[in-house]
Amino acid sequence: MEGRTIWWEEGGVGLIDQTLLPGRYEHVVCTTVRRLVVAIQRLEVRGAPALGVAGAYGIALACSMALQESPDTFHQSVQQDAAALRSARPTAVNLAWGVDQVLAAVMEEDNPAAAAHLALRLAEALADEDEAICRLIGSHGAGIIPDGATVLTHCNAGALACSAWGTALGVIRSAVADGKDVSVISCETRPLLQGSRLTAWELARDAIPVTTIIDSQAAYLMQKGEVDLIIVGADRICRDGLFNKIGTYMHAVTARYHQIPFYVAAPKSTFDPSRSVLDVIVEERERDEVAAFCGVRTVPDDVPVRNYAFDATPFDLVSGIITEEGIITRPYEHPWLVP
Amino acid sequence: MEGRTIWWEEGGVGLIDQTLLPGRYEHVVCTTVRRLVVAIQRLEVRGAPALGVAGAYGIALACSMALQESPDTFHQSVQQDAAALRSARPTAVNLAWGVDQVLAAVMEEDNPAAAAHLALRLAEALADEDEAICRLIGSHGAGIIPDGATVLTHCNAGALACSAWGTALGVIRSAVADGKDVSVISCETRPLLQGSRLTAWELARDAIPVTTIIDSQAAYLMQKGEVDLIIVGADRICRDGLFNKIGTYMHAVTARYHQIPFYVAAPKSTFDPSRSVLDVIVEERERDEVAAFCGVRTVPDDVPVRNYAFDATPFDLVSGIITEEGIITRPYEHPWLVP
Repeated sequence: MEGRTIWWEEGGVGLIDQTLLPGRYEHVVCTTVRRLVVAIQRLEVRGAPALGVAGAYGIALACSMALQESPDTFHQSVQQDAAALRSARPTAVNLAWGVDQVLAAVMEEDNPAAAAHLALRLAEALADEDEAICRLIGSHGAGIIPDGATVLTHCNAGALACSAWGTALGVIRSAVADGKDVSVISCETRPLLQGSRLTAWELARDAIPVTTIIDSQAAYLMQKGEVDLIIVGADRICRDGLFNKIGTYMHAVTARYHQIPFYVAAPKSTFDPSRSVLDVIVEERERDEVAAFCGVRTVPDDVPVRNYAFDATPFDLVSGIITEEGIITRPYEHPWLVP
Repeated sequence: MEGRTIWWEEGGVGLIDQTLLPGRYEHVVCTTVRRLVVAIQRLEVRGAPALGVAGAYGIALACSMALQESPDTFHQSVQQDAAALRSARPTAVNLAWGVDQVLAAVMEEDNPAAAAHLALRLAEALADEDEAICRLIGSHGAGIIPDGATVLTHCNAGALACSAWGTALGVIRSAVADGKDVSVISCETRPLLQGSRLTAWELARDAIPVTTIIDSQAAYLMQKGEVDLIIVGADRICRDGLFNKIGTYMHAVTARYHQIPFYVAAPKSTFDPSRSVLDVIVEERERDEVAAFCGVRTVPDDVPVRNYAFDATPFDLVSGIITEEGIITRPYEHPWLVP
């Protein structure tokens, strides 16, 4: 996939509105931090690494909006915006990480114009670094995919979830770039269908063979011997397990039952060894994501819905975590996993 | 739930159009066998036991449509209609079973009027028997549900899948009738949402507490200790395993991993010991069930979809099969399972 998922342009933060795909491909420009927060909450931009970049650009945007203020008011305003950005979504660690990377530098700089200039430079560097990291993850991971393999993935850990290239899909892209034949099974990923809308779209655009299935068909295809490998992304990697899109845990359990390798691909910015999975608040999203589709009611009004956005997968179900520095495997005692 | 799911009325076979729930509750009257075949294919009526009743009423309808024919032409016409009904859906065994129960008697009777009268009487008896069998399944199964339990189910094996009462939901209804507190988690059941549209609707109508989740959240709730028991229906029980709605196998595997009991509730008419699960053709349904919703495209046009309607669960993952004659358990050497 050419181009970036999120970028800076005169007047604000540009992004592909991912809620409209695959039907429509449209750009949005967020000219205020409030609009960027809405874009994050509505999942116009989503995916752990892309949220890190969004957080960084968000601070650049906060700075450019407060340029006319006195140094004190400038710093106060940027800090308020930083808090709003950080809390836009609670589970993915990268968003707060991206905010904090840029905010720390901004707070050291007294002159608003200089701080704004620095913030933008850092955010651009972070976006470039994200793509470079994805390509490193890809080259470290490509070796785990045999030629001719069918790889199952869940949600979208692709170019659309990062600056470019992708984490889980980056590994697949790198294997394809190495000349391997790879087919992908993309689970649709209820309730918001990032798998059928986004992963299928970006792989088809790159001419990588991809088939879409409902999430609950994955285990049956494993039983039939049609899945060689599973690779997913991650939203937060704690010291004892990881969070990723709801449904990931189900794939990990059924992969174990069928003795199919289950890999996670994620950059260092996703790691949060200060926490156990039990310490993390799992985002519960609104009822209508599940209970309605395009305004058609699919659940009776008097029936409650539970809608966790993520689930937790313990490391004992994970074959390896593919990072920009190599693959971390059992017993998961890597320095990045030590509190 | 009061009333029946499918019935005979002057002029044809009446049924609740289940494709419209929960938004609209409407009756359809099928006045031709061709219309009834369409109703079966479009899932206006669905569920293994209800399909058995539909097959039986279908032969009664075929007879009433051919009343003016000579005896020879009458029998030929009814046999053609029987073939069309039998092949309307390939995986559920009950449809062909219901057709054949009534057809055999019709073929023995030379006089068209007498044959039509007999067919209707047999179909009505089969519908009554189906409700009686569900109530027996319920009373045999109620004991497995502890007071205060949360039971997870998939798809709809309820009153809407039978004449009345239900198989899996019949067990839950019987436990509630015995005075137990039972809460139900209804998996939405992609792609056609029978769990959120039908199971949630009929349980809420009976004031049995029910919550809806996306299918891929089930394993996470098991991890969190929020599921005590799983009960599902079946579309065909072979000598070595069973077919039920796609997603059932995933629940069976994740239930085993979490050591949660996994039960199947089904009448004798669902048993087909002449076959191994490997011998059965699994219905693959049309792309747009997965790729579009209310006309909105959710999968890019150039991306293929695989859409199996059912999956196979081997007996070693099943805690017991609840039938009208009791619960069949390991080693599954019951006479109904011997070819």
